[in-house]
Amino acid sequence: MGRVTERRRVIRIRDGAVSTRPDTLVAEEPLEIRLGGKPLAITMRTPGDDFALAAGFLVSEGVLASADELANIVYCAGATADEENTYNVVDVRLADGVPVPDITLERNVYTTSSCGLCGKASLDAVRTTARWALDSSPATPVRIEPATLAALPDRLRAAQRVFERTGGLHAAALFTTDGELLDIREDVGRHNAVDKIVGRALQQGRLPLSSSVLMVSGRASFELAQKAVMAGIPVLAAVSAPSSLAVDLAAETGLTLVGFLRGSSMNVYAGEHRLALPAEASTRTD
Amino acid sequence: MGRVTERRRVIRIRDGAVSTRPDTLVAEEPLEIRLGGKPLAITMRTPGDDFALAAGFLVSEGVLASADELANIVYCAGATADEENTYNVVDVRLADGVPVPDITLERNVYTTSSCGLCGKASLDAVRTTARWALDSSPATPVRIEPATLAALPDRLRAAQRVFERTGGLHAAALFTTDGELLDIREDVGRHNAVDKIVGRALQQGRLPLSSSVLMVSGRASFELAQKAVMAGIPVLAAVSAPSSLAVDLAAETGLTLVGFLRGSSMNVYAGEHRLALPAEASTRTD
Repeated sequence: MGRVTERRRVIRIRDGAVSTRPDTLVAEEPLEIRLGGKPLAITMRTPGDDFALAAGFLVSEGVLASADELANIVYCAGATADEENTYNVVDVRLADGVPVPDITLERNVYTTSSCGLCGKASLDAVRTTARWALDSSPATPVRIEPATLAALPDRLRAAQRVFERTGGLHAAALFTTDGELLDIREDVGRHNAVDKIVGRALQQGRLPLSSSVLMVSGRASFELAQKAVMAGIPVLAAVSAPSSLAVDLAAETGLTLVGFLRGSSMNVYAGEHRLALPAEASTRTD
Repeated sequence: MGRVTERRRVIRIRDGAVSTRPDTLVAEEPLEIRLGGKPLAITMRTPGDDFALAAGFLVSEGVLASADELANIVYCAGATADEENTYNVVDVRLADGVPVPDITLERNVYTTSSCGLCGKASLDAVRTTARWALDSSPATPVRIEPATLAALPDRLRAAQRVFERTGGLHAAALFTTDGELLDIREDVGRHNAVDKIVGRALQQGRLPLSSSVLMVSGRASFELAQKAVMAGIPVLAAVSAPSSLAVDLAAETGLTLVGFLRGSSMNVYAGEHRLALPAEASTRTD
């Protein structure tokens, strides 16, 4: 509920000088996500946009794909021993007729870690559960200029408010293919920031996000690539490095994956057909 | 098994010039941890030190506290549909007489997220399951010089090998209170790097790590503070910011928590009694 930062006393040491002062920290609290009353997952998150986080998480898991599949989301009062509403437990109810996934231990392990039994199995799982292609019209895929991508990190940083104060947050932002900022979220967990963006888009009836670019402040893991694919986002750009499995997933699903996006430099790991590159791009090597 | 990095083709764009070349990426693969044959958790990790990772995870969860409680750890062959040994599934067997935790859905949710139902509940859980105090002799707690802490980031970076090549890894290192490097691990997941260090210490009979400092390359989350406490490590130092819940846990358990450790500067958020500070430290404010 907007408890994005908290104040704590800190002892600062600067070149041997010691002082005590209040400091602003990023808030971190657990959120339990229930589906139809049953516990599904717990994530450590920065409070705020909790309903969007829960909705976006369920998009990533293939449970939700549109606003009309969602009946409602509520905070659970009395979920803890002292009967207080901690605003740390939400219950998602699906609309009539929407299949509720079978929540077994194995399924639960799957969902909380956002991966399958092995790399191969998880790639298969993503391919079968994504409900849309990454391009609304496969004949004319999204095209984006490298110069547009190069401008995104500065826009992300300019829009980051809490990071400046605490240094403890990851950011994710959604842009149009022309580089216009659509949404930005910050969270102590990078996957939560993405879930919040995807969840808000679902709530506003904007899925699939087929003409947009997802930009993240840190590294591109398998999990983030999977979330982009599940939301129908065709381009994922990261300030830092991708993992091998993120690149493999991008190659298999057709996701455009850009890493080390800094200044006018970037590395394109997959899906280069969406980038407006000089003609020699695919042939020249050095 | 040592697949710490993998090679992939990348298209590099530098100031408008485009080239194609091989690139080194950090390897990311899922590891399923089974306990007595039953699935307990899946983590996305960088392959290598998988047995240590599993053992350290079980220390964090309060299942293991010494090497003699561990019977053995094996890779499971035939765990996947095609019967191959992917080296992505390990099974931990406890020694006779060591209680096997009840693996229910709720317990599993707890373990995979490394937190409880709410902040309060999780803090309680840590306090009750930790098997040792953070100081081997409470009357004479560990003392460490700020100058010793200030030297750790450079030693961590000097010891980081894979990061230089891929830019995609988190590092965790264990030091003596005199600043001597005891162990360092790198992983795509920061919690895995810590689990690998703690697991190796368990395997070598070195728990609790009561005269050591844990240094992490990034931020200090609740989860990392919890892992330090469960391993008996009295000092956690991070290059970047802690979260509010990490500070709360440190204050409740007596853990010394240092953040923004850069150059000769640092912030001390809890447990300052272990730092050799000038006498006015606790009184002067500005």
